[in-house]
Amino acid sequence: MSKSTLNILKIGGKVVEDEAILDRVLNDFTQLGGYKILVHGGGKRASALSEKLGIPAQMIDGRRVTDAHTLEIVTMVYAGLYNKRVVARLQAKDCNAIGLSGADGNLILAHKRRGWKHDYGFAGDIDAVNTQSLIQLLEAGFTPVLCAITHDKKGQLLNTNADTIAAQTAQALASKHEVALHLCLDLPGVMRDPNDLTSIIASITKREYDNYKKQGIISGGMIPKLDNAFTALSKGVKQVRICGPASIRQGGTLLQ
Amino acid sequence: MSKSTLNILKIGGKVVEDEAILDRVLNDFTQLGGYKILVHGGGKRASALSEKLGIPAQMIDGRRVTDAHTLEIVTMVYAGLYNKRVVARLQAKDCNAIGLSGADGNLILAHKRRGWKHDYGFAGDIDAVNTQSLIQLLEAGFTPVLCAITHDKKGQLLNTNADTIAAQTAQALASKHEVALHLCLDLPGVMRDPNDLTSIIASITKREYDNYKKQGIISGGMIPKLDNAFTALSKGVKQVRICGPASIRQGGTLLQ
Repeated sequence: MSKSTLNILKIGGKVVEDEAILDRVLNDFTQLGGYKILVHGGGKRASALSEKLGIPAQMIDGRRVTDAHTLEIVTMVYAGLYNKRVVARLQAKDCNAIGLSGADGNLILAHKRRGWKHDYGFAGDIDAVNTQSLIQLLEAGFTPVLCAITHDKKGQLLNTNADTIAAQTAQALASKHEVALHLCLDLPGVMRDPNDLTSIIASITKREYDNYKKQGIISGGMIPKLDNAFTALSKGVKQVRICGPASIRQGGTLLQ
Repeated sequence: MSKSTLNILKIGGKVVEDEAILDRVLNDFTQLGGYKILVHGGGKRASALSEKLGIPAQMIDGRRVTDAHTLEIVTMVYAGLYNKRVVARLQAKDCNAIGLSGADGNLILAHKRRGWKHDYGFAGDIDAVNTQSLIQLLEAGFTPVLCAITHDKKGQLLNTNADTIAAQTAQALASKHEVALHLCLDLPGVMRDPNDLTSIIASITKREYDNYKKQGIISGGMIPKLDNAFTALSKGVKQVRICGPASIRQGGTLLQ
């Protein structure tokens, strides 16, 4: 039996925070064929809320430290405000969205980050994606909308990177579905020159990626995202694309 | 074919805010037989957060006015913080909880309150409970945990009374299931004298209730709760109980 298509779209907090862009992106998302899962990241709102409440953001080597207060704030913003905003907008477009964290239905099991040089607090690294529950929801006609919160099955919520959630969900479902993973970034794809929108790289192999990294053409925050994406491709995900808010359905950079 | 049992427990924000009480209540909840749904209300945390953010609570005749800022705050606290806290705790007890607002799976359709003397902002009155989606989730092995947020299917989230959600969900599912509705209040049941814990009324008919109201024995906030509860009973809900955090499984006041 041929596998059915599953489109997984990951969007960042910036998209969720901009009503006009969110609307366009969600329109395009609803037009994707087959089964669908949306994963959304955090954004500036959590930091802004922290600041207003007098809880300064703590960063170590560019990574946020999730203390107990910060965990409450990201749970409120990601699982509450953003997740339900996206779900309500999708429902208005007749997409039967169901908004979930990794605790709901035990969808994403994680553990508190350990063995690192620093203590990142309630940051979660993923152990397993519960494909059975996700497949049940998809087959019942729901479109899961996942936020970047997981749990340890011992009662503890954990703050988890949304790119990783999207990639690991894609990998976990690859044996059951033909999975296409669409990672929506701020730029319309991987660029030779971020200031030149015509410099988009239409397709990229792992070898080319390694060369671009050496040459410094791809650098900074793009590296963990593309590392994640190439891992997904090597683990059975059928198609991985880097796209922008205006190129959800076509264009962008295809990983090969 | 005989109907299967469905237990619906409604708890208030006070229970969710107290870790020790929440733990005991959730233990008892997991012990209830048959299908289960948990509905949780708001609490002081939303008001405290509003205050910290400099958004004063507006009340008209004892009802909260939900302006756009307040809606964001209740969405964060109810659908985010509280809902995921309850779900994570239930998952730790091997109850396959799935936390949802009324927007998720289009579970609870509501409209912005209209035709009242005052404008209550984004307060929602329920039009319909989506029994098909709830039954799908129950039959797939999930235990829905509902927060007090609904939507209008046009993209707008709405703040909705949790007692009403519990009662209307119970009524909507009564044709399919033998529904027992357990309303957990601060006190262990309906009391003749709130200061005398031995004065609990073990069972109460609608006629007795009307008499107690006339005599002023039942008054204030208990009246809308009991009105709701008696309506549920008259609309096919098999059993309605008023209980306290220590009497989830037995005791309390049985409505007859």
